[in-house]
Amino acid sequence: MSNEFDLTAWLKKTTETVNHSLDQLLPFEDVKPTTLHKAMRYSVFAGGKRVRPAILLASVDACGGNPESALPLACAVECIHTYSLIHDDLPAMDNDDFRRGRPTNHKVFGEGLAILAGDGLLTEAFALAAHWKAVTRYNHKDVMAELAYQAGSLQMVGGQAIDLESEGKAITREELKYIHERKTSALLCLSTRLGGMAADCTEEQLKALTDFGYKVGLAFQIIDDILDVTQSTEKLGKTAGKDVQEQKATYPALVGLEKSKQLAAELTKEAFDSLHIFNGKAVILEALAEKLLNRDH
Amino acid sequence: MSNEFDLTAWLKKTTETVNHSLDQLLPFEDVKPTTLHKAMRYSVFAGGKRVRPAILLASVDACGGNPESALPLACAVECIHTYSLIHDDLPAMDNDDFRRGRPTNHKVFGEGLAILAGDGLLTEAFALAAHWKAVTRYNHKDVMAELAYQAGSLQMVGGQAIDLESEGKAITREELKYIHERKTSALLCLSTRLGGMAADCTEEQLKALTDFGYKVGLAFQIIDDILDVTQSTEKLGKTAGKDVQEQKATYPALVGLEKSKQLAAELTKEAFDSLHIFNGKAVILEALAEKLLNRDH
Repeated sequence: MSNEFDLTAWLKKTTETVNHSLDQLLPFEDVKPTTLHKAMRYSVFAGGKRVRPAILLASVDACGGNPESALPLACAVECIHTYSLIHDDLPAMDNDDFRRGRPTNHKVFGEGLAILAGDGLLTEAFALAAHWKAVTRYNHKDVMAELAYQAGSLQMVGGQAIDLESEGKAITREELKYIHERKTSALLCLSTRLGGMAADCTEEQLKALTDFGYKVGLAFQIIDDILDVTQSTEKLGKTAGKDVQEQKATYPALVGLEKSKQLAAELTKEAFDSLHIFNGKAVILEALAEKLLNRDH
Repeated sequence: MSNEFDLTAWLKKTTETVNHSLDQLLPFEDVKPTTLHKAMRYSVFAGGKRVRPAILLASVDACGGNPESALPLACAVECIHTYSLIHDDLPAMDNDDFRRGRPTNHKVFGEGLAILAGDGLLTEAFALAAHWKAVTRYNHKDVMAELAYQAGSLQMVGGQAIDLESEGKAITREELKYIHERKTSALLCLSTRLGGMAADCTEEQLKALTDFGYKVGLAFQIIDDILDVTQSTEKLGKTAGKDVQEQKATYPALVGLEKSKQLAAELTKEAFDSLHIFNGKAVILEALAEKLLNRDH
């Protein structure tokens, strides 16, 4: 089914739309404090693939909603993703000098401003979400609670904390799953769920989208681990082999490369299964999941 | 009028209530990730005077609202204040080892976790705000937009960015006012305005509360600058004389001590004037403003 759908064209158009919205909705570079807004925009427009906004808008489509009305939420999720990368790259965290082939935020603007740019983007996510128009089943209370939960200390920030504490330590597969669920699945669940909410979805649809986001998220992160081992720095646009070098726990390190690939494939199959209730209407989500699993960088 | 009111007793009770709510609403220390939640609670329960929640609840009272219903918003504002202190104390920012007489968050938990504890508290603020019950005139969209605006890159985070960039540089009085408005008035306006909103206030009341918050905030920060020059480290519970030592621009440095005191008094008078429309009902707000102006630490 997804073979008939031109995902490349859809992604190109969707990325352009999201980029345009982000450009319009974020404070411009000439708005005071200009350095702060430059720093925020530097990372937001650093060539990100807009995977999360795409998944959010594909979820809107699966539920028959209007993608345009969901753009403020798609931008909000991208701001949260970008802020998490800025803070994660800091010397006190992952200490990475490059991201998407460009110097990381703190290498360009300094650590203090990078911390503030991250804080600004996290806060801006909620400002953007306030631009969304509520629907019959879901209002701003739901959206605010959802953003805060998935991005907060029980989910995304929690995953980063455990990840930070686990560096150089031997951890179990269960612990690694805990980290991956929070560092990656949380924002993908946020994306599918906000997409569903924007489309005024039913409870059953929201549950299916949650399952899908969770499973694609886990698969996505296992593939990230695999690519770190198998691909070059040039291809990835970030330092390859860094996980091994820093003795980071990864699926390939814990269960081997082949088993990791198999796990990712299984999770993707389960993700597809959870889309059954859309009766073939979740074409874009299916195509996206296939692409995310088969990517090589 | 405010002489008849027992502010000390009210503040004691209010602080207890806010502390109890924060304790109940924030993730407990034994919730995973335990170190992260310990770090978040370490700074939230570090002896803060709960000035912003008190101003929020006093604003509710001035508008005849129910303080209990506003507690989630009071806690949200305190979380934002606490996160800003954690990030502000980091080596890349103000580089402070002590806060309220205790080691700062990163001195106890390390820089990485301190960054994440701040991120967690900022996100938690919105989770708490989602617990609030909407009223006739204001809903979660208004509250989310208000929190994001006052805490965001145009206000609080923006003030910190300019403050960071101005260190060791000669700045104008206008520039200093810009910083103070954002580093202090923004969160006080947030407090008075959310208090008003929680009490379903009129547009006229909201405007008066905004003026009051703005002016008390500026006065509050000028007094902070004055105390840094005139008081001991022991009395302040943080390193005294730090502004002078780091050649930070302050009102005493730019206009002198006496002129600074006079400015603070003038702003407080203007703040009182803005409460006229409450016809004597803003007893607690008036008493609070008097206390904030006459404090010696």
